[in-house]
Amino acid sequence: GPICKTGNPVTDDIKLIDELVGNLPNDYKIQIKYISKVPNVTDTCWLHLTVPEMSFSLDVLLEKFAKNSSNYLIIENLHRILDGIHNCLSDDKKDYHEESEFSCEKSNLEPKQYFSYFNEIITAFQLAEDTNPCDAE
Amino acid sequence: GPICKTGNPVTDDIKLIDELVGNLPNDYKIQIKYISKVPNVTDTCWLHLTVPEMSFSLDVLLEKFAKNSSNYLIIENLHRILDGIHNCLSDDKKDYHEESEFSCEKSNLEPKQYFSYFNEIITAFQLAEDTNPCDAE
Ligand SMILES: [Ca+2]
Repeated sequence: GPICKTGNPVTDDIKLIDELVGNLPNDYKIQIKYISKVPNVTDTCWLHLTVPEMSFSLDVLLEKFAKNSSNYLIIENLHRILDGIHNCLSDDKKDYHEESEFSCEKSNLEPKQYFSYFNEIITAFQLAEDTNPCDAE
Repeated sequence: GPICKTGNPVTDDIKLIDELVGNLPNDYKIQIKYISKVPNVTDTCWLHLTVPEMSFSLDVLLEKFAKNSSNYLIIENLHRILDGIHNCLSDDKKDYHEESEFSCEKSNLEPKQYFSYFNEIITAFQLAEDTNPCDAE
């Protein structure tokens, strides 16, 4: 994404998401604080909220697998991508949770929904412009 | 097991159980009608009840994974072992659920417990004698 100065953190490991989803029970529920996109707010602003929540959720998920398992290794790599994205986001100490435009709800998502949300975050990052994060349009 | 006339259905695939368990979320709940062992009843009798229930449960579990996933392939092989054991059990059309010695309860087991129960069935089969299934000792 153009907002990143230190190279692209999004590696080819995102191609392993389908393999991971197919290797998880399709009715398993993964907990995450889900934040809907809203109009009139930039993707960058949305990323400031969603990336830390997704990173936390992936970390909890990771610990449910054996360290040498294929699912563990893929989740670990996806977590690394998110950390890379997080490092690219400007560190302006603003409390983005105060932004009233967003509603954040604790959700339990099945693997397919959960990683579709993950992909939405990756896409938003790749399309995001380096603007002041939460400027309204 | 000595109760089987057509060769040993228990293949090396049981060595993949640890890999499978490590590759499942450790808090995932798998439904099965769990049947406790009771004293004074032969293992063969217990197998007549547990093998069909475990086979049914594994079949439901199997359908939760993508067909080309590693978890699917391992579960499919474990299911095949159980089918082989089932074919070795005498087909005497008795309704073993009528045996009042056993209590059967719907349970939701985590992967580690669930496959420990699976292993208990395999071990019982390997040790079982070819006796009249439900003779009390
Ligand atoms: Ca899994």
